[in-house]
Amino acid sequence: MRALTLSGNRARLDTAYPAPAPGGGEALIRPVLMGLCATDLELIKGYMGFNGVLGHEFVGMVEECPGQPELVGARVVGEINLACGQCPTCLRGDREHCPARTVLGIFGHDGCFADLFTLPVENLHIVPGDVPDTAAVFAEPLAAALRIRHQVSLGPDTRVAALGDGKLGLLVAQALSLSDCGLMVIGKHREKLALLERQGIATSLAGELVERAAFDVVVDSTGSPDGLAMALDLVRPRGTIVLKTTVAKPAPVEVNRLVINEITLIGSRCGPMGEALYTLSRGLVDVESLITDIIPLERGEEALERAAQKGSLKILIENRANVS
Amino acid sequence: MRALTLSGNRARLDTAYPAPAPGGGEALIRPVLMGLCATDLELIKGYMGFNGVLGHEFVGMVEECPGQPELVGARVVGEINLACGQCPTCLRGDREHCPARTVLGIFGHDGCFADLFTLPVENLHIVPGDVPDTAAVFAEPLAAALRIRHQVSLGPDTRVAALGDGKLGLLVAQALSLSDCGLMVIGKHREKLALLERQGIATSLAGELVERAAFDVVVDSTGSPDGLAMALDLVRPRGTIVLKTTVAKPAPVEVNRLVINEITLIGSRCGPMGEALYTLSRGLVDVESLITDIIPLERGEEALERAAQKGSLKILIENRANVS
Repeated sequence: MRALTLSGNRARLDTAYPAPAPGGGEALIRPVLMGLCATDLELIKGYMGFNGVLGHEFVGMVEECPGQPELVGARVVGEINLACGQCPTCLRGDREHCPARTVLGIFGHDGCFADLFTLPVENLHIVPGDVPDTAAVFAEPLAAALRIRHQVSLGPDTRVAALGDGKLGLLVAQALSLSDCGLMVIGKHREKLALLERQGIATSLAGELVERAAFDVVVDSTGSPDGLAMALDLVRPRGTIVLKTTVAKPAPVEVNRLVINEITLIGSRCGPMGEALYTLSRGLVDVESLITDIIPLERGEEALERAAQKGSLKILIENRANVS
Repeated sequence: MRALTLSGNRARLDTAYPAPAPGGGEALIRPVLMGLCATDLELIKGYMGFNGVLGHEFVGMVEECPGQPELVGARVVGEINLACGQCPTCLRGDREHCPARTVLGIFGHDGCFADLFTLPVENLHIVPGDVPDTAAVFAEPLAAALRIRHQVSLGPDTRVAALGDGKLGLLVAQALSLSDCGLMVIGKHREKLALLERQGIATSLAGELVERAAFDVVVDSTGSPDGLAMALDLVRPRGTIVLKTTVAKPAPVEVNRLVINEITLIGSRCGPMGEALYTLSRGLVDVESLITDIIPLERGEEALERAAQKGSLKILIENRANVS
């Protein structure tokens, strides 16, 4: 089968990659539409030391499911962490943090940029009929954006600065705007911020005058090693910084400033996928405006290049052979 | 007057330092007993770039108080942050974080290692009669230790690792042990940990087998640049690290681990001094066992050397001329 694979720091389309077979409790999935994420680009730079098939954002059809054959033909999205289900962490409900986990297309489990891939059935969510593929493919990053509201309490008196206007930043901004809070999104690209302005979300260009040490909550979705330093400038004493950014080479943190100003720093990763599908189904966020291009899997290498280009937002990969 | 001053990286006893005069709202204080803190040693290494009279832990007598003469003769301890009282941060109640603040013996305000020094009256707390000077002098660091319980919720199911068995670490351990939680104190010195064992607090020598990624809360009071890395090893996914350590040269932080494991990092600095006096008055903690030596102010330089020596716990400076 075709698969977009990473080996060392080189990503390439392999046209004769062995097709996977579903293990116990797993489904074989034929992806229809896949999303490229900044993490994919960081993996190519060496983040996590991953080798294998890339890709962790998808919407697809269940092709085989030995344990639950009634799922064959279902349109699904999926949680990316494959947990053991039996350790204290899993039993506590923190399956995303299972110490024995693998992660789809990121760590120890081949990803979805291929004709076929596998995931445990328990990771799958059926997509509501009113959510088109072009929206459903955003379920995974939207869930990560929605996670923030489960980690910090936001209210009308909460001043929130959301840093970053990349593809994750724009989802985070929209997710935060679902709460009645004093939100200001700070980015570097006027045309990307315009997508938010159209929804009535206040934005500001980085470098414009923004009050320092004034925000109760600052979210770093810049995807840049500099994001945390900027967050430290903007957060008020005793305020909270939520970190969404992982990069291959993080910048040093001014630990003394954290202590002196009694800042709370919260790491934030994956989120509730069911809530993401609900949010898409209700039309509460606009994800399809973020699509820069849809490129077929056979041109997967070009898709990676496009995703790395300045100005690109979401690049989707389409598996035309899989479109019925 | 005599004063232990810092200039550049050199601390020395000045026998002809000009005596301060209390400004509006200030009291002139004659310290009786003063405490040496790891922060004093970090200041000498360059932390905060401070020049002036060192010292921020004390118990003393009000010598002059133009605005409230009834305070003359009162025995007091004092909060170390001098706030403006008028900015949004102060009005919100976060006076310790006033952006215009100075800090006793740390930033912009001469400290207490002298025959006389000044503090605003609003910073002072009268010491209860049943708290001896040798306990009252611990009010400031004990307050910093007690602060942690206001930042994280501790209960019988909370597994807490407290890192560090220095003078702050031993106070933090005792403060945490006032909560019914699963506390384990990890230190490097068997004889220091023994002070806690005598109180029934569980301890472990660093390097002994301790379960990794298992603690809900980890407090770093090591005063060492390595403390945070050790905390990251011990905290469970979605757990909390409380940072008490400030050092002149912090080590790099593994930001990606924070994000991937969704760790919460909380900076923690000064605490409630009234609660510290209450705790001392009730005899809930043992501070006097932490005293390694009491050295007169005229031998202040020796006191600094002693405080920096391996094995030292609390070095106090006594102002014999001030002992009635």
